[in-house]
Amino acid sequence: MAINAAVDETDPLLAKRNRTISKSTSQLALVGSRVCAIESLDFEIAENELLNQDLRARSDRVEFFGYLILKWVLCFIIGVLSGCVGFFFNLAIENIAGVKFVVTSNMMLANRYLWAFGVFAASNLVLTMFAAIITAFIAPEAAGSGIPEVKAYLNGIDAPEIFSFRTLVIKIAGCITAVSSSLHVGKAGPMLHTTACIASLLGQGGSCKYRPACRWLRCVKNDRDRRDLVTCGAGAGIAAAFRAPIGGVLFVLESLSSWWRSTLLWRAFFTTAVVLVVLRTLIDFCKSGKCGLFGKGGLIMFEVTAESVSYHLVDLPPVIFLGVIGGILGSLYNFLLDKVLRFYIHINEKGRAYKLLLAACVSIFTSCCLFGLPWLASCRPCPGGISEACPTIGRSGNFKKFQCSIDHYNDLASLFFNTIDDTIRNLYSAGTDRAFSKYSILLFFVTSYFLGIVSYGLVAPSGLFMPVILTGATYGRLIGMLMGSNSTLDHGLFAVLGSASFLSGSMRMTVSVSVILLELTNNLLLLPLVMVVALISKTVADCFNTNIYDMLVKLKGFPLLQRHVDSYMGQLTVGDVVTAPLQMFNGVEKVGNIVHILKTTGHNGFPVIDKPPFSESPVLYGLVLRMHLLVLLKKRCFLSSQLPSQINTSEQFSADDFVKGSSGRRDSIDDILLTAEEMEMFVDLHPFTNTSPYTVVETMSLAKAHLLFHQISLRHLLVIPMLNSRMPVVGILTRHDFMPEHVLQLHPFLVGGMRKLLQFKKSTEFLRDIC
Amino acid sequence: MAINAAVDETDPLLAKRNRTISKSTSQLALVGSRVCAIESLDFEIAENELLNQDLRARSDRVEFFGYLILKWVLCFIIGVLSGCVGFFFNLAIENIAGVKFVVTSNMMLANRYLWAFGVFAASNLVLTMFAAIITAFIAPEAAGSGIPEVKAYLNGIDAPEIFSFRTLVIKIAGCITAVSSSLHVGKAGPMLHTTACIASLLGQGGSCKYRPACRWLRCVKNDRDRRDLVTCGAGAGIAAAFRAPIGGVLFVLESLSSWWRSTLLWRAFFTTAVVLVVLRTLIDFCKSGKCGLFGKGGLIMFEVTAESVSYHLVDLPPVIFLGVIGGILGSLYNFLLDKVLRFYIHINEKGRAYKLLLAACVSIFTSCCLFGLPWLASCRPCPGGISEACPTIGRSGNFKKFQCSIDHYNDLASLFFNTIDDTIRNLYSAGTDRAFSKYSILLFFVTSYFLGIVSYGLVAPSGLFMPVILTGATYGRLIGMLMGSNSTLDHGLFAVLGSASFLSGSMRMTVSVSVILLELTNNLLLLPLVMVVALISKTVADCFNTNIYDMLVKLKGFPLLQRHVDSYMGQLTVGDVVTAPLQMFNGVEKVGNIVHILKTTGHNGFPVIDKPPFSESPVLYGLVLRMHLLVLLKKRCFLSSQLPSQINTSEQFSADDFVKGSSGRRDSIDDILLTAEEMEMFVDLHPFTNTSPYTVVETMSLAKAHLLFHQISLRHLLVIPMLNSRMPVVGILTRHDFMPEHVLQLHPFLVGGMRKLLQFKKSTEFLRDIC
Repeated sequence: MAINAAVDETDPLLAKRNRTISKSTSQLALVGSRVCAIESLDFEIAENELLNQDLRARSDRVEFFGYLILKWVLCFIIGVLSGCVGFFFNLAIENIAGVKFVVTSNMMLANRYLWAFGVFAASNLVLTMFAAIITAFIAPEAAGSGIPEVKAYLNGIDAPEIFSFRTLVIKIAGCITAVSSSLHVGKAGPMLHTTACIASLLGQGGSCKYRPACRWLRCVKNDRDRRDLVTCGAGAGIAAAFRAPIGGVLFVLESLSSWWRSTLLWRAFFTTAVVLVVLRTLIDFCKSGKCGLFGKGGLIMFEVTAESVSYHLVDLPPVIFLGVIGGILGSLYNFLLDKVLRFYIHINEKGRAYKLLLAACVSIFTSCCLFGLPWLASCRPCPGGISEACPTIGRSGNFKKFQCSIDHYNDLASLFFNTIDDTIRNLYSAGTDRAFSKYSILLFFVTSYFLGIVSYGLVAPSGLFMPVILTGATYGRLIGMLMGSNSTLDHGLFAVLGSASFLSGSMRMTVSVSVILLELTNNLLLLPLVMVVALISKTVADCFNTNIYDMLVKLKGFPLLQRHVDSYMGQLTVGDVVTAPLQMFNGVEKVGNIVHILKTTGHNGFPVIDKPPFSESPVLYGLVLRMHLLVLLKKRCFLSSQLPSQINTSEQFSADDFVKGSSGRRDSIDDILLTAEEMEMFVDLHPFTNTSPYTVVETMSLAKAHLLFHQISLRHLLVIPMLNSRMPVVGILTRHDFMPEHVLQLHPFLVGGMRKLLQFKKSTEFLRDIC
Repeated sequence: MAINAAVDETDPLLAKRNRTISKSTSQLALVGSRVCAIESLDFEIAENELLNQDLRARSDRVEFFGYLILKWVLCFIIGVLSGCVGFFFNLAIENIAGVKFVVTSNMMLANRYLWAFGVFAASNLVLTMFAAIITAFIAPEAAGSGIPEVKAYLNGIDAPEIFSFRTLVIKIAGCITAVSSSLHVGKAGPMLHTTACIASLLGQGGSCKYRPACRWLRCVKNDRDRRDLVTCGAGAGIAAAFRAPIGGVLFVLESLSSWWRSTLLWRAFFTTAVVLVVLRTLIDFCKSGKCGLFGKGGLIMFEVTAESVSYHLVDLPPVIFLGVIGGILGSLYNFLLDKVLRFYIHINEKGRAYKLLLAACVSIFTSCCLFGLPWLASCRPCPGGISEACPTIGRSGNFKKFQCSIDHYNDLASLFFNTIDDTIRNLYSAGTDRAFSKYSILLFFVTSYFLGIVSYGLVAPSGLFMPVILTGATYGRLIGMLMGSNSTLDHGLFAVLGSASFLSGSMRMTVSVSVILLELTNNLLLLPLVMVVALISKTVADCFNTNIYDMLVKLKGFPLLQRHVDSYMGQLTVGDVVTAPLQMFNGVEKVGNIVHILKTTGHNGFPVIDKPPFSESPVLYGLVLRMHLLVLLKKRCFLSSQLPSQINTSEQFSADDFVKGSSGRRDSIDDILLTAEEMEMFVDLHPFTNTSPYTVVETMSLAKAHLLFHQISLRHLLVIPMLNSRMPVVGILTRHDFMPEHVLQLHPFLVGGMRKLLQFKKSTEFLRDIC
């Protein structure tokens, strides 16, 4: 073909091709804030003799129902724990941040403004540094929101330590302190990561070190079932963060998960239902006042407008305008965040001191903004005839006194000098159309927009959801004010619509945004407007760039397998991208060969070939996994000759030996020491070989092979030859072979290929720099 | 293998095997109330030379964006039309049924009870017979709810006429008259079928007969894009029926669709958003009173309780009890419906007269129940201090006067002598705990339960949703009454929970039930209770039987491809089920051979083999479709010798020639007449052959092949041999080869196989009887 010829002519490209091969099995990615090697997950069922024996032995109904019930019980436990953790997050944040605000407010009441600033800034700095230090020194994987990592995991990419017990603890402690320190970061993302951690740890039967040998849990010791649990856990996290059970499930479905099925929908829904019940019970308990400052402030549920919302055709133009603005601002946000993150990554790689310095700078800057900017606002007289106290002295409320005299309040302080939750509630509240001046809102919007961008990349657990909701609410309200009498909608309602537009402009969610906001505000009549705004924003923003999570996933170097097939893939066949040389094993293979190949390559799957005299001609028997080979070598169940095995494998091995260990932990060939004598012996691979690997003929188009690879969520796809004359296997396709970077590097002269390749190179350059 | 040997020993089984083969390509199913041949849909992209040329010719961005925009525009049109149709349904039903009730009520006011009954029963009979006659004589496909047919379509099964213009018209007219005739049937199912029809007709560019030659629409002239449109249409139907945009999308996702992806989620959501906006606009228009009796009664939106719902731990036991009862009643409902339907099908097959007689009987019986049973209730004095008029004279309201004296009302008449919508509203309404007596509710529950079962199978468009919601609401309220002071919940709330439990007990939906009820009742605080009830009911009911739609699909004989893989499939390989002899073509084939094979077999896909001298050894070139062969034969682009083609195919053919025609319409080989001379000529199949068919090796386990077949939604799966010596293709797997009936017939001695086989035989027996 012309394409092949073009490639063969250019030697440098071929050289590069080989370089790619050697790299392809262990790619690097930025997990949290640590660069480490990632691996693919094995969702495929390895159908070997041993497994079949095992299945036959326990095919009774009791065992099957036990398995089914176990899954539901695990979901129940995930739900309960997620509810408790979500409650604990809020309880801790409300109390820590609450004490800080109460102390500072009291000082200001006593006119000790400088002291107040000192205490405010110092406590913020201490909290931020605590979060940054524990993250940087103990678990760098806990930095950031964790949503990109969870998304990558659900797509089939395993990174070490993302779901470890250490990460879990640091994520909880770090997120609580970071959010309490008034940094402009959210808690929803870290909460999702936390609950996903809990789910994964439950699935593998506890932490790596203290793993109980639970017989039941054996059933879920594979990547498929763990993925399901993590999916449920992720849904539970969002449900706990927003008290939005349906929104949580839909968020995972729309934004995170790569595969889905009805049963999983039910299990995820069950998990979030449990979360909701647990949260409700705990909040009911707190109504008695035993939870310190946790009360109205906790777990957001905004109840914007008790009265029925009414809107007419005349309200449509401002709503559409809001959608367009949201799309533009959202895509700009993504663009700027990308740039800032790249800059931060460069700083962070210089060492821990730089990381901590960066966090300290941002914390001090934030404290200055929050405390300093309210002084720009002039005091406003308290409105009459309202139920709320004015000015509010305590920690929450719409009317902060700040520096003002009695009967006056500072509208900017009501926005700045509050937790993010409280500020959102202020902005959403109805009947407060005159509470804020236009300039205050504008100033707050600009500050919030840019603080959100500069705060995310710090080495501390930090979410994006809350800043985005807040920023959206601000400009929503601003547009409501600018509309003035041209619109009959309440400004609180405009704030909700603003949040919807910015959420879908930045994160490109539509259904889940609508449902989450519906559940947040408890007002169903808003739904049509929220839907319209969300769809418009997403459409507008999609013209400029991709959604924020895909952007982060790409920035972090995760090789995410997209469902979408690029058009150039239709022009190539599988044979055009498959890479040789291929490592294969015989059905009965010499131990020395196995050890040598395992040591010299990083591959995780090897075709097993039966050759004469065992068969007429070389025949593909199946695929054996590195993981299983390591177990075989460890057990030293070797044969002295190359004759087929007489050993009863089911006596020597049980299926339990082959279950997958905990996430991110792998055995290494270097740990297995064999004598020279053993190296000369043989091992019969037949009983351990997956006899039903998926195969494609080498003439299959790459696009259709990609569809197969993605839909079945494979790790290895065997390529078999079209003609009979050659070996029974041409090569193996893995995730990396379908990455556009890889394909375009091999075939840069495809339509539009060169341009795309340059883009990819540019985007991955910096990662190579820092490795 | 032992399994094969066992089969070979039993000749009768082999005979049956062959019978199965000859039948396998055209299976019969009950579409609506007509038995007709069904076919599989082709979701696979046929990657042949012609298509590639076509793609290269129009790979410009403009065309791509045009395609994208077209899809969204089509969704917009579907949304608008669905909204209008949904509104029209309600407008017509409310007016027809309304006039009927007003006339009857007026007669009863004048004490002319016998006349009133006469008018009531006669008008019901006329309306029912109209619906039955047009359905039986014009479009039997329009009978029933249509949801099983849509579900089968989305799974890849095409039935003639299910989405035709004729079916659409009859479905609308029939459903309106059937529901207006006080038959105990719903409108949601038919509405879904109607909107799916609209979507399909739009996708194929209009009705079969008046198809406009629209160039743009060429892009969506394939089964994949049409499936997406029908998915959006189905969501729009539920959204229009319940004013539940999110519920509609989730219903399709949870219960109907077999495959799903994010883009489709957004498009479906966009469609339902449009529906909502259209409905709102039209209802606003009707507020001016220009829509006759359509008003409060139309489009249900119940607004159960304006005040905030409060509930405590003490309310959990009755709620759990309700869930369990719902599960039991729901599965019993499915069981009885199945039995009654089988009986009805036997009656219906005897001829149209029997069909109509059955409809007439049920109509008269229903009229007697609705008019007669209220006389059993004693009149109750009107409660004081209520805003509503008592007794209500008009057509809706909680307090029907019926035969009672002034200031009294008949509580049974309020339930019976109303449209289903109004009765549901009565049951859901809060603060009416004392409006109904226990015995009235119990009597109504029993009547509603059994009327629902006997009314569904008639030859008229009829849905299941509304009767199920109504029956559930009734026993929910009954349980609320029985609880008495043990529960603090309102009885209206109990009714909502009852509906939730019966819906998920019968239809086994959880997420969509919760969301639909949420959107119906506009009360978010109900959510946790509804979720708990739905999950419990589903779990309990799943112990007994399957959900009602799967049951109907099976009863109707649609070979639905399940996602779930039965355990016995793991014990078989693909080679064990693939059936020979196989029909193949050479790369350049004689016209006579093609015509002969097309005439003698019913297959839809044929492997194309290149043999020497065109290649060294026989090689699989690809798969050619019957549809494409027919186009080739029609065009008569033949060669005089077996030499490879010199004809420029792109000049002779355009991709437009190969687009799929309208749904359910197929070309036949018998329509193509060729001369004897032409029969001796050759045709080059290479440019029209799909060169990338999916293949599996014959040793692949059936379970994993099933996963591939389902996940990629294939129609044909080629089986290639393990060893080199034989022909390059062993056989083709189609949908029917994966059906448990087929597999178990070949291998009845598998674990548990015999028992299952007997079950299957029993369940499909009656279909064979009536064919």
